[in-house]
Amino acid sequence: MMPRMKFCSVCGGDVSYRVPDGDNRERAICNICGTIHYKNPLIVVGCLVEHDDKILLCKRSIEPRYGYWTVPAGFMELGESSAEGAARETREEALAEVELGRLYASVDVIEVGQLHLYYTARLKGSFGAGEETLETRLFAKDEIPWDDIAFRSGKFALERFVEDGGRDNTVHIHELRRVKSY
Amino acid sequence: MMPRMKFCSVCGGDVSYRVPDGDNRERAICNICGTIHYKNPLIVVGCLVEHDDKILLCKRSIEPRYGYWTVPAGFMELGESSAEGAARETREEALAEVELGRLYASVDVIEVGQLHLYYTARLKGSFGAGEETLETRLFAKDEIPWDDIAFRSGKFALERFVEDGGRDNTVHIHELRRVKSY
Repeated sequence: MMPRMKFCSVCGGDVSYRVPDGDNRERAICNICGTIHYKNPLIVVGCLVEHDDKILLCKRSIEPRYGYWTVPAGFMELGESSAEGAARETREEALAEVELGRLYASVDVIEVGQLHLYYTARLKGSFGAGEETLETRLFAKDEIPWDDIAFRSGKFALERFVEDGGRDNTVHIHELRRVKSY
Repeated sequence: MMPRMKFCSVCGGDVSYRVPDGDNRERAICNICGTIHYKNPLIVVGCLVEHDDKILLCKRSIEPRYGYWTVPAGFMELGESSAEGAARETREEALAEVELGRLYASVDVIEVGQLHLYYTARLKGSFGAGEETLETRLFAKDEIPWDDIAFRSGKFALERFVEDGGRDNTVHIHELRRVKSY
């Protein structure tokens, strides 16, 4: 996680932490130019990719959780929709093109300041291992390596998906509050 | 919107814009300490508050869109879930306590780098005008001031809500791409 801000990114002046007028939270405020710097939750987007009743998972080649299996997912970028971001992350991590389905789960991972959104998707062709991946594999629903899933939010989405097959139209909402995000 | 970063918030050094190794997008990178600074979409959370078949709207007392009507909504903060943020914004802008329902709409407002999430809610007691509000009012569904709604994403959510009464279980997904967010 990014260290606490010490210097203003606009003018390079040092910042103090205090509650701005009309606000109710402490923010980093520049002592020179007065810019108020807000820090807000980040969005992670990913795909539950299905093919022949199996689910696509990636074995991570990077920390955190090196060697653990994950639903392809990553930080949403500026200039894309959340659905596009989910498809892009799947392209990057699993080298897979997908046909996106619908928003399936929204998981607040409060202690790390993240909101994780998972979309359903269907595999359109081949797959492989992207730069952040050791191995990509399709798992039958009774073969999912539950003890080796990298992150709790992905595990939550996978569990619901295995239960209802993604056919239920509900968006599954969940909140995770423990300090550890995985 | 925050000006483009010129100085590193960690060490105060100046930054250059280039694509880091293993990445595919330009980022601000500190020329002194090497910190990579990411900029990602922000989350706005709000409530479609119902009471006696009417909907609660707030007339804005601040720019942008001073004097226009809005669904109570604002930036999600660290340390809260998206649902809690939606309830907090309603408390701050409409001085109203609500019983939260479900995630109703997810709107990507791509050109401003925001994701807007709207929850259904029921009014639990009184309401009033918070600091960012001139006036709060309950509107019957055929009285909604459609030409004076502040933001397109809120208008989208309101339109769907008036159509289906919030009874449909679907989460309404929408993408807005024009430069103007309202």
